[in-house]
Amino acid sequence: MAEILSGKVVSEEIRNGLKAEIEELQQKYPGFLPGLAIVQVGGREDSTVYIGQKVKNAAAVGVKATHVQLSRTATQDQVLQAVEKLNTDPSVHGIIVQLPLDTENDIDAHLVTNSILESKDVDGLHQSNAGKLARGNLSGCVLPCTPRGCLELIKHSGQSIEGKTAVVLGRSMIVGSPMSDLLTWNHATVTVCHSRTKDIPSIVKSADILVVAIGKTEFVKGDWIKPGAIVIDCGINSVPDETKKSGKRLVGDVEFAKAKEVAGWITPIPGGVGPMTVAMLLKNTVDQARKAWEKAGNSSRWNLS
Amino acid sequence: MAEILSGKVVSEEIRNGLKAEIEELQQKYPGFLPGLAIVQVGGREDSTVYIGQKVKNAAAVGVKATHVQLSRTATQDQVLQAVEKLNTDPSVHGIIVQLPLDTENDIDAHLVTNSILESKDVDGLHQSNAGKLARGNLSGCVLPCTPRGCLELIKHSGQSIEGKTAVVLGRSMIVGSPMSDLLTWNHATVTVCHSRTKDIPSIVKSADILVVAIGKTEFVKGDWIKPGAIVIDCGINSVPDETKKSGKRLVGDVEFAKAKEVAGWITPIPGGVGPMTVAMLLKNTVDQARKAWEKAGNSSRWNLS
Ligand SMILES: NC(=O)C1=CN([C@@H]2O[C@H](COP(=O)(O)OP(=O)(O)OC[C@H]3O[C@@H](n4cnc5c(N)ncnc54)[C@H](OP(=O)(O)O)[C@@H]3O)[C@@H](O)[C@H]2O)C=CC1
Ligand SMILES: NC(=O)C1=CN([C@@H]2O[C@H](COP(=O)(O)OP(=O)(O)OC[C@H]3O[C@@H](n4cnc5c(N)ncnc54)[C@H](OP(=O)(O)O)[C@@H]3O)[C@@H](O)[C@H]2O)C=CC1
Repeated sequence: MAEILSGKVVSEEIRNGLKAEIEELQQKYPGFLPGLAIVQVGGREDSTVYIGQKVKNAAAVGVKATHVQLSRTATQDQVLQAVEKLNTDPSVHGIIVQLPLDTENDIDAHLVTNSILESKDVDGLHQSNAGKLARGNLSGCVLPCTPRGCLELIKHSGQSIEGKTAVVLGRSMIVGSPMSDLLTWNHATVTVCHSRTKDIPSIVKSADILVVAIGKTEFVKGDWIKPGAIVIDCGINSVPDETKKSGKRLVGDVEFAKAKEVAGWITPIPGGVGPMTVAMLLKNTVDQARKAWEKAGNSSRWNLS
Repeated sequence: MAEILSGKVVSEEIRNGLKAEIEELQQKYPGFLPGLAIVQVGGREDSTVYIGQKVKNAAAVGVKATHVQLSRTATQDQVLQAVEKLNTDPSVHGIIVQLPLDTENDIDAHLVTNSILESKDVDGLHQSNAGKLARGNLSGCVLPCTPRGCLELIKHSGQSIEGKTAVVLGRSMIVGSPMSDLLTWNHATVTVCHSRTKDIPSIVKSADILVVAIGKTEFVKGDWIKPGAIVIDCGINSVPDETKKSGKRLVGDVEFAKAKEVAGWITPIPGGVGPMTVAMLLKNTVDQARKAWEKAGNSSRWNLS
């Protein structure tokens, strides 16, 4: 029977740690206040809910989050201008653009993401941050939130990653690809699977560490799992459930009930990877705010000398 | 008995193709001349030999190569200034900095590489180009030369890559890591191995496509190879050989004599990956020159309208 890797519990520890860290930094740097700007184009209801969660969580740890709302009619230039304003605002240390964009215009989401100053890119999606991560410069880049959260959960198993066999299902820009890079540079031997991969069950069977991010309800069956494996399930899929008031419930990409009989460690849904993502967004923001203040502190000392 | 994937032959085809392409572009754009600048810091003998080969090959296809030599005493700022001058020179379409640097000073090679304009980075080592490649934007980036050459050789086998099992030994910035990305985004299922990987022989055994780039003499044994596999050997290792006038000969990272009995296709050393690397540098330069001229052509048409 697997041990549950609770993102709910671990993310709370992280948020508490961030709160304490911010208070400590405020002693050192009076006026220190990490600022996160969340740019929303249009008004998708799900996006508004996610942004609400981020703002609420930010406030709880002492990060000042600002919700920058642009209308569905905003042009690409207007979105780029909004980002540029935040780039030059010294009270803003992290900028994210909530995706997908809800727009009437033809806006290139990659262009927008890459217009964020690399050092304020707390979603870790800027191509320079991706390039550094992919080539092993982990300390020089901002890590994407969901993979960073998955890595924390893996570490919470207490098992070392080095030399382990890891399998990642999915190669998206947000989850799968950066997750593979993170595992490779933590010295696992990583296999990346995607929609063209043949014989996924037998590849999954080899995994000491399995991360699944494909968005397909209970795609990974319990009997594919290697006994004792660490199983991280990023999937968030909604299925009908008459026993619930809402008429539905959330399930992952892994057949949880059976997999937990075989795995050594497993993440639940909900309460697994989900809450870690928001905690890591806040951690990235605090990290970048600290770096910005350290840099300013050093340069003012420099100016004095 | 494996078919030999001759980089000597394929690279010659590519160079001939480039020569024809340049002549055709000169018809279309009078004055068209692809320019490649090779920056060398210090005077390492091996670097000078490599640069000589690049310059000679460039001249043969009609690329104007310039060897920019800085002394061993050049500071980081001076190197950055030299690159900046080439960045703004419209007759230069490709810039490479020959590594390793031979310098008396503390120069950050990554900083220098990343100071090259992304669109002139014909070695494909800029972090933005790496980020695009790693996240699957292959058409938007400049591909690193050796991996691009390996991909050409794999394609020359006539086998499709999609859905195949690929194994890459090595995860360097120049060869292994970008090679894995290229295979993943050509839809192979890729496993990346490195010095912490356990049981490499059995992983190698699963590979329909095997690329080896570790720099260890005949590390991969013939009986590890899956029968019929495509084997690409990037290794260049010098071993003593009394039968040669020079007293040494070059061997790869794969035990060629035995592997060729098992593999379906295999690259020789010398005459395998090596000549492909230079051909791909020239291809990248011509590609970027064409893009620059097309852009200038379009914008002058634009100005006229
Ligand atoms: N917990 C959290 O905070 C977050 C959760 N998620 C969830 O994670 C899941 C994945 O998200 P995301 O990465 O954005 O999704 P994407 O749709 O962007 O990517 C899905 C990936 O899965 C691969 N895939 C799809 N079908 C199969 C299949 N049958 N076999 C193997 N691979 C397959 C795709 O392959 P190919 O590339 O070949 O198309 C693709 O690489 C979703 O459920 C999403 O809701 C996402 C972000 C954050
Ligand atoms: N033909 C051409 O034009 C070119 C050829 N080359 C040749 O290719 C080879 C590799 O070059 P390069 O990538 O630059 O080399 P690097 O030394 O930069 O990288 C070597 C890689 O191999 C891995 N490695 C080392 N030993 C082992 C082992 N015992 N088992 C598994 N993996 C191992 C290392 O792992 P780790 O990351 O864990 O240290 C590292 O990732 C060299 O022979 C080089 O001369 C290189 C460039 C161009």
